Amino acid sequence: MNKYVYMFDEGNAGMKSLLGGKGANLAEMTKIGLPVPQGFTVTTEACNSYSGEWNKELPDSLVDQIFESMDRLENITGKKFGDPQNPLLVSVRSGAVISMPGMMDTVLNLGLNDRSVLGLAGATSNERFAFDSYRRFIQMFGDVVTHIERYKFENILEGVKEKRGVEYDTDLTAEDLKIVVGKYKDLFSKEMNRDFPQDPREQLLMAIEAVFNSWNNPRAIAYRNINEIPHNLGTAVNVQSMVYGNMGDTSGTGVAFTRNPATGEKKVFGEFLLNAQGEDVVAGVRTPKDINQLQDILPEVYEQFTAVLNTLEKHYKDMQDIEFTVERGKLYILQTRNGKRTAAASLKIAVDMVEEGLLSREEALMKIEPQHLDQLLHPNFDPEVLKNARLLAKGLPASPGAATGKVYFTAESAACAAAQGEKVILVRQETSPEDIEGMNAAEGILTSRGGMTSHAAVVARGMGKCCVAGCGEIRVEEAGKRLVAGDTVVKEGDFISLDGSTGKVYLGSLPRVEPELSGSFAVLMEWADRVRSLKVRTNADNPRDAATALKFGAEGIGLCRTEHMFFEEERIPAVREMILSKTTEQREKALAKLLPMQKEDFKGIFKVMEDRPVTIRLLDPPLHEFLPKEDDDIKELALNMGISFDELRGIIEEMSEFNPMLGHRGCRLAITFPEIARMQTRAIIEAAAEVIRETGLQVKPEIMVPLVGSVTELEYLKDIITETAGQVMAETGVEFEYLIGTMIEVPRAAITADEIAREAQFFSFGTNDLTQMAMGFSRDDAGKFLSAYRDKGIIDTDPFQRLDQAGVGKLVEMAVKLGKAARPDIKLGICGEHGGDPSSIDFFYRVGLAYVSCSPFRVPVARLAAAQAVIRNNNI
Amino acid sequence: MNKYVYMFDEGNAGMKSLLGGKGANLAEMTKIGLPVPQGFTVTTEACNSYSGEWNKELPDSLVDQIFESMDRLENITGKKFGDPQNPLLVSVRSGAVISMPGMMDTVLNLGLNDRSVLGLAGATSNERFAFDSYRRFIQMFGDVVTHIERYKFENILEGVKEKRGVEYDTDLTAEDLKIVVGKYKDLFSKEMNRDFPQDPREQLLMAIEAVFNSWNNPRAIAYRNINEIPHNLGTAVNVQSMVYGNMGDTSGTGVAFTRNPATGEKKVFGEFLLNAQGEDVVAGVRTPKDINQLQDILPEVYEQFTAVLNTLEKHYKDMQDIEFTVERGKLYILQTRNGKRTAAASLKIAVDMVEEGLLSREEALMKIEPQHLDQLLHPNFDPEVLKNARLLAKGLPASPGAATGKVYFTAESAACAAAQGEKVILVRQETSPEDIEGMNAAEGILTSRGGMTSHAAVVARGMGKCCVAGCGEIRVEEAGKRLVAGDTVVKEGDFISLDGSTGKVYLGSLPRVEPELSGSFAVLMEWADRVRSLKVRTNADNPRDAATALKFGAEGIGLCRTEHMFFEEERIPAVREMILSKTTEQREKALAKLLPMQKEDFKGIFKVMEDRPVTIRLLDPPLHEFLPKEDDDIKELALNMGISFDELRGIIEEMSEFNPMLGHRGCRLAITFPEIARMQTRAIIEAAAEVIRETGLQVKPEIMVPLVGSVTELEYLKDIITETAGQVMAETGVEFEYLIGTMIEVPRAAITADEIAREAQFFSFGTNDLTQMAMGFSRDDAGKFLSAYRDKGIIDTDPFQRLDQAGVGKLVEMAVKLGKAARPDIKLGICGEHGGDPSSIDFFYRVGLAYVSCSPFRVPVARLAAAQAVIRNNNI
Repeated sequence: MNKYVYMFDEGNAGMKSLLGGKGANLAEMTKIGLPVPQGFTVTTEACNSYSGEWNKELPDSLVDQIFESMDRLENITGKKFGDPQNPLLVSVRSGAVISMPGMMDTVLNLGLNDRSVLGLAGATSNERFAFDSYRRFIQMFGDVVTHIERYKFENILEGVKEKRGVEYDTDLTAEDLKIVVGKYKDLFSKEMNRDFPQDPREQLLMAIEAVFNSWNNPRAIAYRNINEIPHNLGTAVNVQSMVYGNMGDTSGTGVAFTRNPATGEKKVFGEFLLNAQGEDVVAGVRTPKDINQLQDILPEVYEQFTAVLNTLEKHYKDMQDIEFTVERGKLYILQTRNGKRTAAASLKIAVDMVEEGLLSREEALMKIEPQHLDQLLHPNFDPEVLKNARLLAKGLPASPGAATGKVYFTAESAACAAAQGEKVILVRQETSPEDIEGMNAAEGILTSRGGMTSHAAVVARGMGKCCVAGCGEIRVEEAGKRLVAGDTVVKEGDFISLDGSTGKVYLGSLPRVEPELSGSFAVLMEWADRVRSLKVRTNADNPRDAATALKFGAEGIGLCRTEHMFFEEERIPAVREMILSKTTEQREKALAKLLPMQKEDFKGIFKVMEDRPVTIRLLDPPLHEFLPKEDDDIKELALNMGISFDELRGIIEEMSEFNPMLGHRGCRLAITFPEIARMQTRAIIEAAAEVIRETGLQVKPEIMVPLVGSVTELEYLKDIITETAGQVMAETGVEFEYLIGTMIEVPRAAITADEIAREAQFFSFGTNDLTQMAMGFSRDDAGKFLSAYRDKGIIDTDPFQRLDQAGVGKLVEMAVKLGKAARPDIKLGICGEHGGDPSSIDFFYRVGLAYVSCSPFRVPVARLAAAQAVIRNNNI
Repeated sequence: MNKYVYMFDEGNAGMKSLLGGKGANLAEMTKIGLPVPQGFTVTTEACNSYSGEWNKELPDSLVDQIFESMDRLENITGKKFGDPQNPLLVSVRSGAVISMPGMMDTVLNLGLNDRSVLGLAGATSNERFAFDSYRRFIQMFGDVVTHIERYKFENILEGVKEKRGVEYDTDLTAEDLKIVVGKYKDLFSKEMNRDFPQDPREQLLMAIEAVFNSWNNPRAIAYRNINEIPHNLGTAVNVQSMVYGNMGDTSGTGVAFTRNPATGEKKVFGEFLLNAQGEDVVAGVRTPKDINQLQDILPEVYEQFTAVLNTLEKHYKDMQDIEFTVERGKLYILQTRNGKRTAAASLKIAVDMVEEGLLSREEALMKIEPQHLDQLLHPNFDPEVLKNARLLAKGLPASPGAATGKVYFTAESAACAAAQGEKVILVRQETSPEDIEGMNAAEGILTSRGGMTSHAAVVARGMGKCCVAGCGEIRVEEAGKRLVAGDTVVKEGDFISLDGSTGKVYLGSLPRVEPELSGSFAVLMEWADRVRSLKVRTNADNPRDAATALKFGAEGIGLCRTEHMFFEEERIPAVREMILSKTTEQREKALAKLLPMQKEDFKGIFKVMEDRPVTIRLLDPPLHEFLPKEDDDIKELALNMGISFDELRGIIEEMSEFNPMLGHRGCRLAITFPEIARMQTRAIIEAAAEVIRETGLQVKPEIMVPLVGSVTELEYLKDIITETAGQVMAETGVEFEYLIGTMIEVPRAAITADEIAREAQFFSFGTNDLTQMAMGFSRDDAGKFLSAYRDKGIIDTDPFQRLDQAGVGKLVEMAVKLGKAARPDIKLGICGEHGGDPSSIDFFYRVGLAYVSCSPFRVPVARLAAAQAVIRNNNI
């Protein structure tokens, strides 16, 4: 028979997935001898079976185990369940594997009925307390278990208070409370068509079922979706004997952190209320006292308390968040868990604990959530100001940071306003490569469409610029130069503020707090660098981004996109001339104009990166992306080209594609127009030659061919690149090493990686496109169904943010194996968005890549995640 | 040392890839004792090395082998190369592995020079013949080896003829020809800045190099592209001692087929010229005689000749195409090869040869090119009429057959004209699902955009309807109701004719020849059915197509697309209502209107298919495909819906996608809107129940979930399907078996096929989409670069027509292995376009699929190809 129920002294902290976080910790505390009110835990397995094969009924086997455990609890406490003399009362609480605070339900004081309430009164010599407990129990049970609306109980209580002419609950006498109890029971009978259950065993089973059911209440489901918690974990149920903080002035209750969760300072932080139960703290009727005042009020308890805190920190090797109750001078620990903290606090605590000898460096590194580093690198709004800010809408937190500025609706007007010194927020339905200059000029970017990996999101992250994307709550009227959110209309020039870490959009201009990088940050990063084996490069398209990334510790450029350079105002005419050329000669002429500009770009980047490797990708996007879309722009271009509007529009239409993602782009461009590859190779090699000559630096260009699906594509372009590079070296007389490699982003490339590796000196996994093609998800369109997919449990996480290891990951693994077999010294890296995602970085470490490349602001995240991967996978 | 040269008596027919087709056959004929002028073959390997690592130079090792072989040839013939008394003369001809008639170069009479021409005159006692041979040699050598333009030789010859006042070459005397030779040599010196080479050894090496180079001449490359012949095979070079058919009236030359290549009749077919060389036959100066007249003219030769024909047919077990020469009464066979023939002839010959005991049935089946069966099933234009027809343009031969009718430019006008009894050709830039009714009404379809697997092509093939697609030479002006091809304008109502087998478009109305299915066809198909193990199903969406496919031998439906049914005029309003619903209730109401119509569709199909399996795919295309695109249509719909034009256009724009191929479609529709799956399941199961009750047939529905990438998708929908089917069975009281399975068309599905197989009773490979996603090619857009890819040798064949076995095929193989491991009895089939392609069918047989499904008219092709796969892979 399955064991579904564990006494606290049967479990330990390692049984979290079975007992939930709270249950496992209660067991662990029991094991290490801390004063914990005893009880037992019903397992998460039971919860899952209840929702599943048991069809929402508790089977006899489980019921038997529950009551056997109650018997044992009676023996431990010396009290009896439902006893009219010395009744055993219990709390029934949920306890999920991953903490979901406030999301599920709790019942306190269970076991009270018309007879045992008298026992409680006798045992505590406090009739008022007993009836107050009883009325609280009926109210909580009614609310949580039978879903009677809470206000109905409140109305009764308020009615009695009014009648008695008192202001606070505490002013009611025992007799008053008996009246309340009576009215509560009447309410229950009326609402439920049955009497309030007097059998404590029935109460217990009903409460356990209620907790099981609360796992799937809407707010719990929503919380799990937001926090990426799987829906199939289930919750455990903790049944614990009650202790009371409301038994007079030597009783009390409180919460405490072992260190300051905001700053990390090593000083107990928390608050308590004398003569109160936990819910009084929450209700906010009385103002709690600072925890340190306990020293004066109950010095012995305080001494014991600090000793317990020390024990807990040493035991759990982490800052703890504790709930405690003092019952008539006796301390009970009700719960402990790792305390939530700010990013800054987490760094300080980790470094301090190493200095205190509590943690090894590796353990300290594992304590930091890499994602949290983002908070430290970007400015944020003042939390105090946010409390009163006017929220306009909420979108996706696409790129962290905080930005305030005047709204503009076109890239041109944004760039123009910024040039005049204005702070600008660019607002678009969605952005396209045409908008690059406007995005660059803006403080932040807001779009109404597109997901976490839409153009706006990816480019903004690359720029380290705040972005809220896919904000469907607003309607962007680009033509009308306004945005509408509910009843509010924001016009061009009005101020808004974006919080890219939360996705929130505020009306007006909000003050920001600039980030400070603490000493702990530098210390931890240095520890991480010593541990990690994965190199961390950056995706950067210009010297400025490259310099930012270097500051954050980048060791090279893993992806320099050459197309962003094409959109600059002085270049786009030559780019369009190139695209619209009818002959190779025309095209070569236009390319010749671009050559010196591209060369200067590369020289700038090489100089910043010095002797670090720089991977430059040949032109990738479909050419039609560079052509104008609006009639006015087409007219202007037609005029410049000396052809008719209709002819030009015809050409642009002819170039449009049904599925540009799968169209004429990547290496397909360079194969149909080899002169593009020749120009770009020449720009790269000439730039490198000149920088080497000018500075003596060991420039290391790596030329990357995008979208290869077949080795024949790479062969064709490799010939062109090699030939051109050879020519340039002969012309300049400067010889140096460079590599030729390819992106692995088409599934076929992964499948035939052995063939491709014979021609490629390196692979860089383009996991964005690989995900799109392997899963058949267009990242620009998938928003339409991915949210339904998450609601229905079909996917757990957004595969564009976290690599789909079971599917796309298999292709990566396959390509690594095939590639290494064909060319043992092949250089393997990844330059998709996943290069900055910790769980994906762990995967890349495991499959044996040499480096990850991510946007500049993700570099510290990647450094830490890479160190954690080593520690995690080698049990260091 | 590598052996690069083989004497004819060293080779055999099995060495085709090394010796080329001609060389291997000359060796084979030598081996079986036929009268072949002796010689030797330089291998294809040498050709490839010449173009590759030898850098276009002949290495000494090869030169040595060539001249050793010349020594042996001198010994065999008793003549000496360049000898002034009895010179050995040779022909130098290309001989590729796969015949490429006329594409590469030949030099005859090599070995003649100013001295040996006198030896030839002496040996033949015919000075005129000798100098005629010499001038022919110089001309051919000049043309083929040194690329002197041919007309320059012709001008000299014409000049001499004019001067001599004669009409024909044959009227020139030996003295005249000596003058011609002198002038030819002068021309050569002037053009080449050197004397005409007098050293026969130099002549020979130059000629061999010329043949090697001719492998990569532009017309050869173009021919290989058209005929899907790999570019890396290379050509062999055959050096053969000359024999002469122009040595008087007991000499002659001719070509013959052992049977009639047009009808298959068992009677020698061919023609010959007395006293002539091969090129005279080609020149057409004299009219050749029927081969059978040889019996009267040279009876002994004829007798020997027919004996040789018999030997050859028995030896090669196929109808032979022979070149022969009679030199002074002695018969020489210069070449034999399998004769090209019409599809009708190929069937008759194969069946006859089995009856004659020449072939086994399996051998007979292997003689038929499955693709050729298409010719037999569709009407064609009268070839005589075509000679004088006015060609308008040439597009892709997208769906075979011949169609004539009046041009209409919209589906509506086409349908309307057809309803009034007109024969109609629908002409569009491209078609979309909206055009289905117009396509159905038309005789044929012509599009200016899109490839072999564009919407027009796929749907037309499904309908067995003639289609020319992607005809870029015409400009379709849909608004102006006209098409422009060069200077010709075709207006609405004008007649054009389409040849879907060649892609040619003709002006005016051309008469057609209806196909006749011969008895041989039925016999061969029956043999094929006995051999094959792959089942052949069809892709059919309605009872009519299903009935056609049954007639051609289909054994079930492998793909019934439910969306085509949605476009019919009476349904589209309900479909649009469903799509534009804002609530689930609205959507369910609209779906309820569609339910009875879908049910009737399925009943019709079930009744036709009787107890054969019918795979029905749930709704697949993105919903925006069903919405109107033109402003007028949007206005009308808005009016019907009672909303504003702007609102409706806004909704339609909101639904549009960047990459619809990777967007909200397939099972993603049914997951976001489960009510669609419920309605469709209900329609299928109710239809089956009613047909079972009405007819007692054993209906076998197989419900197919499209675009699954993750098992969780299938699980979700399987629950809905099972629940709905259970409800319907309970309601109707009819219980029967049905299957639930999935398409494998997303790469991730193939990679995780083990997980998916646990939920799927069958897999049907959707190789169209699998190819698109695995290769990253949008089939609607790939036309823009695939032709460049073929020209540059990056791909050999269109992956949408012939499965890319090395890449996409690997995914299929992986899915088969994983699927079978997880569910040994899983039913495996394929329903992409590749299901009708013979080489792909061979692959599907090898990886162990159970069936292929293809459009109705491809069913016979698939039956034959499936039989050939068994024979080929088991060496039967």
